[in-house]
Amino acid sequence: MNSSIRAAIIGSTGYGGVELIRFLLRHPNVEITSVISSSSVGKPLSDGFPHLREIIVDHLDAVDIPLIKQKADVVFAATPHGVSAELVPQLLDAGLKVIDLSGDFRLKSPAVYEKYYKRKAADEVYLAKAVYGLAEVFGEQCRDADFISNPGCYPTATLLGLIPAVNAGWIDPSTIIVDAKSGVSGAGRGLSQSFHYSEMNENFLAYKVNRHQHTPEIEQVLSQIAGKEVLTTFTTHLVPMTRGILSTMYAQLTDSKSDEEFIDLYREYYKGRPFVRIRPSGQWPATKEVWGSNYCDIGFSVDERTGRVTIVSVIDNLVKGAAGQAIQNLNLMMGWDETTGLEFTPVYP
Amino acid sequence: MNSSIRAAIIGSTGYGGVELIRFLLRHPNVEITSVISSSSVGKPLSDGFPHLREIIVDHLDAVDIPLIKQKADVVFAATPHGVSAELVPQLLDAGLKVIDLSGDFRLKSPAVYEKYYKRKAADEVYLAKAVYGLAEVFGEQCRDADFISNPGCYPTATLLGLIPAVNAGWIDPSTIIVDAKSGVSGAGRGLSQSFHYSEMNENFLAYKVNRHQHTPEIEQVLSQIAGKEVLTTFTTHLVPMTRGILSTMYAQLTDSKSDEEFIDLYREYYKGRPFVRIRPSGQWPATKEVWGSNYCDIGFSVDERTGRVTIVSVIDNLVKGAAGQAIQNLNLMMGWDETTGLEFTPVYP
Amino acid sequence: MNSSIRAAIIGSTGYGGVELIRFLLRHPNVEITSVISSSSVGKPLSDGFPHLREIIVDHLDAVDIPLIKQKADVVFAATPHGVSAELVPQLLDAGLKVIDLSGDFRLKSPAVYEKYYKRKAADEVYLAKAVYGLAEVFGEQCRDADFISNPGCYPTATLLGLIPAVNAGWIDPSTIIVDAKSGVSGAGRGLSQSFHYSEMNENFLAYKVNRHQHTPEIEQVLSQIAGKEVLTTFTTHLVPMTRGILSTMYAQLTDSKSDEEFIDLYREYYKGRPFVRIRPSGQWPATKEVWGSNYCDIGFSVDERTGRVTIVSVIDNLVKGAAGQAIQNLNLMMGWDETTGLEFTPVYP
Amino acid sequence: MNSSIRAAIIGSTGYGGVELIRFLLRHPNVEITSVISSSSVGKPLSDGFPHLREIIVDHLDAVDIPLIKQKADVVFAATPHGVSAELVPQLLDAGLKVIDLSGDFRLKSPAVYEKYYKRKAADEVYLAKAVYGLAEVFGEQCRDADFISNPGCYPTATLLGLIPAVNAGWIDPSTIIVDAKSGVSGAGRGLSQSFHYSEMNENFLAYKVNRHQHTPEIEQVLSQIAGKEVLTTFTTHLVPMTRGILSTMYAQLTDSKSDEEFIDLYREYYKGRPFVRIRPSGQWPATKEVWGSNYCDIGFSVDERTGRVTIVSVIDNLVKGAAGQAIQNLNLMMGWDETTGLEFTPVYP
Repeated sequence: MNSSIRAAIIGSTGYGGVELIRFLLRHPNVEITSVISSSSVGKPLSDGFPHLREIIVDHLDAVDIPLIKQKADVVFAATPHGVSAELVPQLLDAGLKVIDLSGDFRLKSPAVYEKYYKRKAADEVYLAKAVYGLAEVFGEQCRDADFISNPGCYPTATLLGLIPAVNAGWIDPSTIIVDAKSGVSGAGRGLSQSFHYSEMNENFLAYKVNRHQHTPEIEQVLSQIAGKEVLTTFTTHLVPMTRGILSTMYAQLTDSKSDEEFIDLYREYYKGRPFVRIRPSGQWPATKEVWGSNYCDIGFSVDERTGRVTIVSVIDNLVKGAAGQAIQNLNLMMGWDETTGLEFTPVYP
Repeated sequence: MNSSIRAAIIGSTGYGGVELIRFLLRHPNVEITSVISSSSVGKPLSDGFPHLREIIVDHLDAVDIPLIKQKADVVFAATPHGVSAELVPQLLDAGLKVIDLSGDFRLKSPAVYEKYYKRKAADEVYLAKAVYGLAEVFGEQCRDADFISNPGCYPTATLLGLIPAVNAGWIDPSTIIVDAKSGVSGAGRGLSQSFHYSEMNENFLAYKVNRHQHTPEIEQVLSQIAGKEVLTTFTTHLVPMTRGILSTMYAQLTDSKSDEEFIDLYREYYKGRPFVRIRPSGQWPATKEVWGSNYCDIGFSVDERTGRVTIVSVIDNLVKGAAGQAIQNLNLMMGWDETTGLEFTPVYP
Repeated sequence: MNSSIRAAIIGSTGYGGVELIRFLLRHPNVEITSVISSSSVGKPLSDGFPHLREIIVDHLDAVDIPLIKQKADVVFAATPHGVSAELVPQLLDAGLKVIDLSGDFRLKSPAVYEKYYKRKAADEVYLAKAVYGLAEVFGEQCRDADFISNPGCYPTATLLGLIPAVNAGWIDPSTIIVDAKSGVSGAGRGLSQSFHYSEMNENFLAYKVNRHQHTPEIEQVLSQIAGKEVLTTFTTHLVPMTRGILSTMYAQLTDSKSDEEFIDLYREYYKGRPFVRIRPSGQWPATKEVWGSNYCDIGFSVDERTGRVTIVSVIDNLVKGAAGQAIQNLNLMMGWDETTGLEFTPVYP
Repeated sequence: MNSSIRAAIIGSTGYGGVELIRFLLRHPNVEITSVISSSSVGKPLSDGFPHLREIIVDHLDAVDIPLIKQKADVVFAATPHGVSAELVPQLLDAGLKVIDLSGDFRLKSPAVYEKYYKRKAADEVYLAKAVYGLAEVFGEQCRDADFISNPGCYPTATLLGLIPAVNAGWIDPSTIIVDAKSGVSGAGRGLSQSFHYSEMNENFLAYKVNRHQHTPEIEQVLSQIAGKEVLTTFTTHLVPMTRGILSTMYAQLTDSKSDEEFIDLYREYYKGRPFVRIRPSGQWPATKEVWGSNYCDIGFSVDERTGRVTIVSVIDNLVKGAAGQAIQNLNLMMGWDETTGLEFTPVYP
């Protein structure tokens, strides 16, 4: 029998926060006992999110460690970069289980963090404690962990698409080029001219080329899998849609392989992992086909002419790329079935 | 204890059909035992809907009454107008419970049906048997019914917005003007130049002005509530989005009333009906705030200068306007809690 | 022979400003001699609008009356409400011709202005001087005017749709209901949660119901045409698209009329006015069919059952609803052909 | 003094055709004397394109060579692949100048054409006559040509982004990877489930990976520039927007170079070519910044870590990628200024 736990969500007024709420409300083993935000304390959460009226009636709590400790067993920190670095150690010290959705505990090297995030890294003691929660790859380490650092959205789509091939030695990791595209919700709820409707609608653009903070996150994991340092070319683009990431990945094959061999390799690697779906040869996944769900769908094309493989993966950036994977990690932490509370069919159309 | 029933879905390859599947897969008391389509028989449903891969593995069955009778207890007919008129009587005669999502059994008058639908009406014997499943208004008649005609999308949004005021005599029904707007999925999956992405994107238009087949459906119910014949002006528009209906309704007040009085009237009328949410004065519902869910949100503004009230209601046309309400009707039919399997939080953003 | 004039644009960093630039760059009789903004003075305009790189190389001038007087003959004030009220009198006193795109000089009554705009009205002396530049209706007064107040976007679409019928006495003005819908660019370039891409995309909503500041502007003109006070019900909605307004108008007929009679009435009224196009019976205009152009397209449906007419008009809110009509007014002011510099075909698709 | 010529457009009912009309109507030296379509002959063009009502009143002509010869001096063939192969030789034999917008005369090798287009190639005699009209690169050959094959949309964006670097030997052509993204109008006006609004909206997908027919077109030109056979990896994606192509290109540098050196190289290469705009370092072009115009904007980022350069180029696929470049080619053919009739500022927002 599953016992129930009490969850607090810090950063409840961001997109990650409300998406956690959407899923946790349906989770059979979890009770949301505190919605927390540094702004609008004391007001109903639904003031800023009318879609939650009459569904969640909680008022926002302040970020108050003793209060959180009293109300909750596990904390989801859906807080901005920099805030988590300060806050998470206090939560851990208070004996709470923590799943952190920020980038603050993903990179093991403080120097690399500081180069890409342009701010001070978290304390190394806590960095060392964080388990990187890419559930399908590091799931075993997530079991019984107390502190999980939830992967970034782009790294989730990209790493799930690359790891089996790198692990098998089928592609040369030094030739990997990742061309990633994201819906606008990945940029969060903060206002900016670039995300103003009139300017983002009917528009497509590249941004942070060769500078995105998810680059070292991808490289850290690929290096670990490859057993040697891997550098990648990583480009991000914004798509005029709200949700969805599609990552197109290119690499040189180390040896001749067919589409079918790739499909078999990946199906084997992700066996028993229900949220990764491998497409048949010639069929390409579209972001809408995983919309609102925790799936990651992957397709392949080997080009014999150039000796390269093209891999395409898609996720919903707010689900598998954030809140959904966080709950998947909670399930692993707690020894529950990985899919508990996440059995949502993609919303189509 | 709830017993489980077996459900068949005819028209599984349309938007209504796949949306029924999305909800029924999570319904605790229902097992989908047959997905049926007149096209692609024998092929996996997920061939045409890759988002369902590994979620629903069923192959499409033909429309074969004995087979349906053998496999199912209840049938959802998500079939086009005209098809239901022929098919539903056979299903009923075979002793199946039926929820029909087409327009074929909504209008009691064959003559009116034939005027607006430009085709022969269904047999009057069966027309007479159909319970009009506007759950919040005719829920009592739905209980223990064997045959429910599920309301149209525009009528659902519009009638929920108008009925309490008409019922209370607060507005003059002869002055009602309905200006309704719908996302494009309301037009279904069939191809047409108007719904071609490049032409519908960044476009807004009116269509079927004074001719839409939902006009008599709205008038039939309002006449019943008002106790006299009601004619309305009803205009439909297409919005460049996939899901959502917003209905803006205007009427002359019979007597001076405030926003607050309207709010109280409606909250009282819909007491115990969790899917209707009444907004506070000055707050207007947006379609995105009910997206993917079975809610209908309603707001009001009385204008003292003109003596008119403006009422705005929103639904997700594929959920409360189709599949969700159909399942709500099944719940009523079966004596289950109205919300069973429908407790989905709107997806936001 | 047309002589050339020198134009300054105040508010060059707003959508109205850049749209004026797009058209004036192609105007054969106008030279843009100063682009003015209260922000970013001294910097190239294209810093904030990279689409103008290598097209317009001007640096932004400050709002400096003597400098404007030295550089320009005519000034377009694409400034926010409140700013124009202060600035325009100074420009006029300096002997400049002015076309003001704000709402500050549209309403003749300071009290009404103050009620709807929640700020102090402009000086009545200057209010009295302003010619209301609805070109197809008040074009004669625009000829040789020195100061034109350019109509609002909603009033332009609405008034062009209603005036011929009100003028002919065919509809009862006290029954007019206007249901208007606008693309998001109408709200300008300023940031707001409501216009954040992720929240406005796939969303449709009503706003400012019974409170929009364009209500009295519509009523002022209709009252003038009708020869008696007219009050209207006016509702505004936001459409998930960048450009376009569609206004759906309802009124009770004073006498029985056909679609064809309306079409003839309107074609006669707008004879010689190339920017108004009347659609044949049964064909409804779509916003995309005027996108990027100065056209206003209008369609009709008389409903004999209710004795009402439904009128639909569409414009591009930034062109006929702002910059395009402003240039049309300049043409009238200067005695040039109304279409000079405005012969742009709608961009489709 | 420029003399005027008479133009016929075959395929006037496609997106390329109506876009040619939009520009040619404003071209000072061209008169449209025949709009031609194999469908709807004898009907007004505006029946299918109401945005052209009262702008172009022509009725559609049949595809009748003697009639075309009588009415026109130059013919734009905006016809589907396969149709041009048959038709263009007849037009040339009749002594007409021809600009062909299809893919039928772009590839010099019939075998390669047949592999990618899956249909019979055009007669080699005519293939040999066709000048490939990438105006900024092969402009000299376009002058005085009688027959120009207008480049594809993806090749235009891609080749303008790659040619200066390949020509200078700065990148290793065997390492080129092109990740291209297009708005949906690139797929034309034909109906398909993939382009149905409800399925393409809020969706992003890859298609024809390693199989797109523009691959050999890109390779043919790069091979010519490089002086040796070049194979590329080329992937195409659909973006939920109507217009715009963004091509992200990756290649290994042959020697260390900076962003600034790339910028200088490209500015020098495109000197005197007003439609190519090179962005400063760190600024990336967005598709909306060239929307509706004939510009191609290009940005660069060299990554010293990997020794690769990332190049991003954007065009409007229907303008620089089709109709605009066709008119640019006409201008070159006729010895007119390259920009005649094309001085359109991008429409923003």
